[in-house]
Amino acid sequence: MIKVAIAGARGKMGIEAVHTMTKQPDITLVSVLDYKEIGATLRATGLFTYDVPVYTDMATLVTETKPDVLIDLTSPQAVYANTKQALQLGVRPVVGTTGFTDEQLIELTALAETSRLGCIIAPNFALGAVLMMKFAREAARYFPDVEVIEMHHDQKLDAPSGTGIKTMQMMQEVRDVKQQGHPDEHETIAGARGGNVDGMRIHSVRLPGLVAHQQVLFGGDGQLLTLRHDSFNRGSFMSGVVFCVEQVMTKETLVYGLENIL
Amino acid sequence: MIKVAIAGARGKMGIEAVHTMTKQPDITLVSVLDYKEIGATLRATGLFTYDVPVYTDMATLVTETKPDVLIDLTSPQAVYANTKQALQLGVRPVVGTTGFTDEQLIELTALAETSRLGCIIAPNFALGAVLMMKFAREAARYFPDVEVIEMHHDQKLDAPSGTGIKTMQMMQEVRDVKQQGHPDEHETIAGARGGNVDGMRIHSVRLPGLVAHQQVLFGGDGQLLTLRHDSFNRGSFMSGVVFCVEQVMTKETLVYGLENIL
Amino acid sequence: MIKVAIAGARGKMGIEAVHTMTKQPDITLVSVLDYKEIGATLRATGLFTYDVPVYTDMATLVTETKPDVLIDLTSPQAVYANTKQALQLGVRPVVGTTGFTDEQLIELTALAETSRLGCIIAPNFALGAVLMMKFAREAARYFPDVEVIEMHHDQKLDAPSGTGIKTMQMMQEVRDVKQQGHPDEHETIAGARGGNVDGMRIHSVRLPGLVAHQQVLFGGDGQLLTLRHDSFNRGSFMSGVVFCVEQVMTKETLVYGLENIL
Amino acid sequence: MIKVAIAGARGKMGIEAVHTMTKQPDITLVSVLDYKEIGATLRATGLFTYDVPVYTDMATLVTETKPDVLIDLTSPQAVYANTKQALQLGVRPVVGTTGFTDEQLIELTALAETSRLGCIIAPNFALGAVLMMKFAREAARYFPDVEVIEMHHDQKLDAPSGTGIKTMQMMQEVRDVKQQGHPDEHETIAGARGGNVDGMRIHSVRLPGLVAHQQVLFGGDGQLLTLRHDSFNRGSFMSGVVFCVEQVMTKETLVYGLENIL
Repeated sequence: MIKVAIAGARGKMGIEAVHTMTKQPDITLVSVLDYKEIGATLRATGLFTYDVPVYTDMATLVTETKPDVLIDLTSPQAVYANTKQALQLGVRPVVGTTGFTDEQLIELTALAETSRLGCIIAPNFALGAVLMMKFAREAARYFPDVEVIEMHHDQKLDAPSGTGIKTMQMMQEVRDVKQQGHPDEHETIAGARGGNVDGMRIHSVRLPGLVAHQQVLFGGDGQLLTLRHDSFNRGSFMSGVVFCVEQVMTKETLVYGLENIL
Repeated sequence: MIKVAIAGARGKMGIEAVHTMTKQPDITLVSVLDYKEIGATLRATGLFTYDVPVYTDMATLVTETKPDVLIDLTSPQAVYANTKQALQLGVRPVVGTTGFTDEQLIELTALAETSRLGCIIAPNFALGAVLMMKFAREAARYFPDVEVIEMHHDQKLDAPSGTGIKTMQMMQEVRDVKQQGHPDEHETIAGARGGNVDGMRIHSVRLPGLVAHQQVLFGGDGQLLTLRHDSFNRGSFMSGVVFCVEQVMTKETLVYGLENIL
Repeated sequence: MIKVAIAGARGKMGIEAVHTMTKQPDITLVSVLDYKEIGATLRATGLFTYDVPVYTDMATLVTETKPDVLIDLTSPQAVYANTKQALQLGVRPVVGTTGFTDEQLIELTALAETSRLGCIIAPNFALGAVLMMKFAREAARYFPDVEVIEMHHDQKLDAPSGTGIKTMQMMQEVRDVKQQGHPDEHETIAGARGGNVDGMRIHSVRLPGLVAHQQVLFGGDGQLLTLRHDSFNRGSFMSGVVFCVEQVMTKETLVYGLENIL
Repeated sequence: MIKVAIAGARGKMGIEAVHTMTKQPDITLVSVLDYKEIGATLRATGLFTYDVPVYTDMATLVTETKPDVLIDLTSPQAVYANTKQALQLGVRPVVGTTGFTDEQLIELTALAETSRLGCIIAPNFALGAVLMMKFAREAARYFPDVEVIEMHHDQKLDAPSGTGIKTMQMMQEVRDVKQQGHPDEHETIAGARGGNVDGMRIHSVRLPGLVAHQQVLFGGDGQLLTLRHDSFNRGSFMSGVVFCVEQVMTKETLVYGLENIL
């Protein structure tokens, strides 16, 4: 039985993480960490039932509830200090917030190694999305002609999506720069050929009704290889959190990115 | 049994049309029209067997072989004169070449009507592609949020494709101008959001291996409606030619665009 | 401004309908009908704010709140009596429950016609799904070779889905019976070729994570035409309810099935 | 420059292999092996130009034209003897025909190892299809709920396809047997839920116009991961043959299946 504490339990992701952890047969939620006093316990009855002590001081939390793992779903501002303190207190961090500097990552990596404690930092918890990116990096070795189509709801502000950009970066690690399409191709409507990253093209579709979807298309002689991930709701992240809690118990070093343990 | 003559029988489309017509149970290929002397007959043995007289003068062709229908697969330069002469000689034209002026279309429409002869001019013979465009026009009434993704081989010069542009035009007939996406959305990689036509977006994918594919995506509350056409080879055009030969026999006016008889 | 009453406002669909109606600029929710006493008003504050009188007697409801339209989201048991009474009281019904007998439909059709009142009965409110079925019926005229793939979450009990069966039935109206595939094809794993309906094949995919999705594939010479609908959440039904409320005000007869007014 | 000989050069695949090899900058086609006398040379002019000596005896072929690699595209009957003799003569085989017994594979593996010669036997040369299967095996570790949809032209006799069965077998290597869908699910049309392999489901679509396509769908909490391969023509195999010719030069052992070198 893995004992888990959660930091950031009142946020959107945090609430779902609380629900998810209380339903796992191999996990016990022993406490939550909050930055302000919200009362002695986090409690619910009805569909979800739990009753968990709340702490504002991590040292006290660890002494009194002895968690194996700290799931950190707080803000980029709080996450570095939390992760460092957890490692110093002998607790394995599972972190879903980005916002570390390179220096901080180097320090935390060294700290995890000397403490022989697992620590997983995952910018994306959706296993399927991480597999799609990992497979894309592998396929780009053999199919340098590649285009990405990412599709999201029409309230999204930035194009392309973070996952789209990350996917292109991972393919850049193995793919030589190559302009795609015909050398003399021309757009009769500007933007039709999408965004250009080292010759790869990326297209951002925005429509009401969509959630978060991406496909990566690789073309070769007489064939097309397509990798696609559809995220329909936040549940896709939660199974990744559970996976990380289980995995971090078997590690003795810091891992950055789920693609490195899948 | 419908008697057919073909103009432009030595081009890529023409050769396939000859093969296709010789295999139809309800059609006989009686002659071909050529602009230069290529010998008395077009003849083949082996896989395809035929032996058809060649004419360079349409009047002689009509007098001697009495076709019901003239399939014109020649060039934009030749097609107007051919179509007009066919109608004057009492032959129903099925035309797959574009390149008529508005004045020519008005004249031919009047000529077909007074002669009570069917005449079909089809910029696109692929029934599936025409249905996709027709359905897109119908769906755009109810789903004004729409994006088009057209995908072709990487030797294509222009983006977007002709079918992509035609699809947008057909949707413009019924859809009010509306900017899509979030009013404050911004591209961190230029072109990611594709080409903009009245707020609709179009994306052109170019990859080796692809042939000619298009999808039209309509988003609404909690749902997505997708229309897709894949053209794998020129066979998709040939079944449209056969369909037009059969349909033109039942018409007494000029029809422009297959969407108007489907 | 259209005045609307809702029957069945406490069910899953009913709650969403209440929320949806209170947000429409051209619609006012004036009352709800319940089969038992639940208090004088249906009231909410916070994210959704409303305060609507509740009646257990339709005659009183109509006299006191004068709705133009009754949205009925009750059970098959209650719906016939509700619809009949609404028409007799001069209110236009929009009904989302199935479960009418043929005799009841004939009676209600006559009643709507003599009262000159619109009445819409919609087994499926998702406009996109209804368009997909309507387009499928149209495409099956030209492409008799068709297979359906419907995909749902793995808690669904029956295969194929109701929408899948309805789609096949609509295609049967226009398509001649035709066995598809090679006459000598054989399954080395039983069931691989799916369910057989007049030669058309239907395949049911069940996976966790999926919601409700369907594609209809039409094959022809060198081409494939695909119609696809994805339903991501119940929102897809609500925009159909709004559409029906607006449409029923312009009708003077009973319409069964949204495909007949799209 | 790699010197290549081809056995089976007059078959469908062989003709394409001859064309492909004559176009590679790093490969020279030095000879072809035939089982019967067909004249001194294989020669073509026009679009494809080549002039290559033909041998009926492999020993003479090797002595006189000194190939590095023998591409074998013959029949299951001939392939074992050819591969063994090639290895004995110091030539690296690239074999596209299946039909080896386990004993023959063990013998050839030992022979390649003692000779320190690369030898690649590839039941499927399409790199994209092999990657799809490899990725499917990897994804099945994390997503045990999986269904396969394979789609082919309607002249195909067997269902499911060989690639579909091979994909299921590769996933069986890592996936525990698990019945999918609801325990109480029932088919109202027999076969709707497809073929059952250890709980995984496979669906075979057969339509005119299709070539060879497959998708593998993995479902999880709130998400779907899809791997898809489309083969549009035989060109997809040829780039795999070129890849194998280049790879076999770097190997000193026998490799069975491209998935083991990708």
